Amino acid sequence: MQREKKYFYFELIYQSTRSHARVGRIHTPHGIIDTPNFVAVGTNATLKAIDNNIVNDIGLQLMFCNTYHLMLQPGTAIIKQAGGLHSFMNRPRPIITDSGGFQVFSLAYGTVKDELKSKGTKKLDNGVLSITEEGVLFRSYRDGKRVLLTPESSIQAQKDLGADIIIPFDELPPYHIDPKKLQDSLLRTHRWEKRSLDAHLENPQQQAIYAVLHGGIDKNLRRQSCQYLTNLPFDGFAIGGSLGKNHQEMFDMLSYTMPYLPKDKPNHLLGIGDLTSLEPCIKLGIDTFDSSHPTRVARHGQLLTNNGTIKILNSCNKTNFQPADPTCPCLMCTKFNRAYIHHLFKAKEITGLTLATIHNLTFMVNHMADYRESILNNMI
Amino acid sequence: MQREKKYFYFELIYQSTRSHARVGRIHTPHGIIDTPNFVAVGTNATLKAIDNNIVNDIGLQLMFCNTYHLMLQPGTAIIKQAGGLHSFMNRPRPIITDSGGFQVFSLAYGTVKDELKSKGTKKLDNGVLSITEEGVLFRSYRDGKRVLLTPESSIQAQKDLGADIIIPFDELPPYHIDPKKLQDSLLRTHRWEKRSLDAHLENPQQQAIYAVLHGGIDKNLRRQSCQYLTNLPFDGFAIGGSLGKNHQEMFDMLSYTMPYLPKDKPNHLLGIGDLTSLEPCIKLGIDTFDSSHPTRVARHGQLLTNNGTIKILNSCNKTNFQPADPTCPCLMCTKFNRAYIHHLFKAKEITGLTLATIHNLTFMVNHMADYRESILNNMI
Repeated sequence: MQREKKYFYFELIYQSTRSHARVGRIHTPHGIIDTPNFVAVGTNATLKAIDNNIVNDIGLQLMFCNTYHLMLQPGTAIIKQAGGLHSFMNRPRPIITDSGGFQVFSLAYGTVKDELKSKGTKKLDNGVLSITEEGVLFRSYRDGKRVLLTPESSIQAQKDLGADIIIPFDELPPYHIDPKKLQDSLLRTHRWEKRSLDAHLENPQQQAIYAVLHGGIDKNLRRQSCQYLTNLPFDGFAIGGSLGKNHQEMFDMLSYTMPYLPKDKPNHLLGIGDLTSLEPCIKLGIDTFDSSHPTRVARHGQLLTNNGTIKILNSCNKTNFQPADPTCPCLMCTKFNRAYIHHLFKAKEITGLTLATIHNLTFMVNHMADYRESILNNMI
Repeated sequence: MQREKKYFYFELIYQSTRSHARVGRIHTPHGIIDTPNFVAVGTNATLKAIDNNIVNDIGLQLMFCNTYHLMLQPGTAIIKQAGGLHSFMNRPRPIITDSGGFQVFSLAYGTVKDELKSKGTKKLDNGVLSITEEGVLFRSYRDGKRVLLTPESSIQAQKDLGADIIIPFDELPPYHIDPKKLQDSLLRTHRWEKRSLDAHLENPQQQAIYAVLHGGIDKNLRRQSCQYLTNLPFDGFAIGGSLGKNHQEMFDMLSYTMPYLPKDKPNHLLGIGDLTSLEPCIKLGIDTFDSSHPTRVARHGQLLTNNGTIKILNSCNKTNFQPADPTCPCLMCTKFNRAYIHHLFKAKEITGLTLATIHNLTFMVNHMADYRESILNNMI
């Protein structure tokens, strides 16, 4: 049954008997994504500080690119003219793009963190000009031009980009929101997602489309969102919206949300990829995670290892001539020692950012392979 | 005769009959440098934006590191403890370090360009506290500490670094200088270089030492400098000091200086590596050139090719899906198109800086190989 669309389907390899953790394979037109897996974020069609050739060598199976940024620079028409995102950025493996909605709204409300800090007092700033049933009118951060983003225009942009997995247009309500407003937002998001799906189905173009489940941390709304969206012919399900103000709220929300998702389709947790969250989420059955966290902290000199995070700028690394992680197969760990990386960061050399990014990405790729191995051995 | 020091000697392969251009090989403990050749500048023990593994893959045969910067960060003691610069930075091929003098004085007088602009009105700023027969007292730009740099301490620093080629401590007088002061500076530089040589010879450590010829654009002083320094047992000769205010002054100076240099030893032109200067200098018999120009302009989006410089930020590249240089074997040209590189620069992605640097370095390595081929074919 899952093979009805041969260009995209989820293959279950193993279901743990100890938890909801599962090992699978997402088949796409650009190859396989083994799950559970980490999805690195290359906002502008590149990860920061490393080129797509290295990313491919490291073995990253799915990269996340941001439609909002690419719409504004270089513009999706140019990427279409280049033959799509894979060709433009020279990535032979799978790509996922988002709808642009998340960026528009997070620019408006600030980050989730900012919004939490403001306790709901932060209002839409003037980046977002209006939100109507039609869509969102906002001002480009690049040239000040007014841009109308609608379900249809977001899908069109994602058709131009041509990623393997696309995402319907949704509204990202803030964490602090009046319950009635959250309910209204959910219903509008559902209408927008349905319009996105319809626009997509007019020309599937061998792309898959994941619904985005909303409802914040309201149990009833999450259930309502799952019930509505899983009854539509989406190819997978992403868990979006507000995920709660701390890890526990997120785990609770996932615990009551995950059972509503169909087992024969892949799911994705949007924007989460810190090491603490991974295992509990995997045990709840999450297949893929995207996060800019591992690559961002790399640029601040935080090197991820199985024995904790190395802060390479710490002075204890000044005369440590051992590799950051002797068990790591990456370029940084096999060719350079801690003292040298410490020096590169002290001297503010770009090379340090690149090497640390290579390391953290390699770590994440291997870390997820380890989780798959553990599940296959029924250890988690 | 040139084999008296087996760990370092110059082997002449071919002397053009059309000019003073020559093809040779400099043998060092870390391998061969084919000449004429380009020497890239990796101030802080890395080229900016690319790691030493890539530099090695590209085939750069000699890298220039700056003693002044490495003394202040991480400190030469740490590099010595790491087993020297080759081990610290993981570069298996030849390295040259300078004495630190150039940076101390150029920080004091500003760049040659600044100094030329100021027409000699710019005085020593408070970075340099005093210049005496002993050496130069200056304030560290990193922590404000007072540092005394002398011929002996510069050589000791370079012993700690352990490069294949080291440089004696010299004074860099400004272009606009009273002739008497230039003469005095020259004599002091000669005394400093002799002290440097003596310090070096106490413990050669398989390093070669190049004298630095001075005299500005004064014919008599240049001759005097050549005569004094070539009578000392230096392993090679670098042309330093003020090289004139424009290309013509430099070519004139080289025309009357080069005949005084011994043919059986390698020579080096300090700080010059722009494409316009290369051929005329090669014809005058220059063996090696160091310059940060190709890597610096890369970071401004200027891509060097045999058909001129491509300014990748020009809007004509926005929808050009061809490689920057279809004949270039580098990662940037074989894997990515102009529109993508243009986009990376527009989006201010570090990846663009890295790819452009890889390209320009590859270009320089191949460009110099082309010059050697032309000389071997007696075409220049």
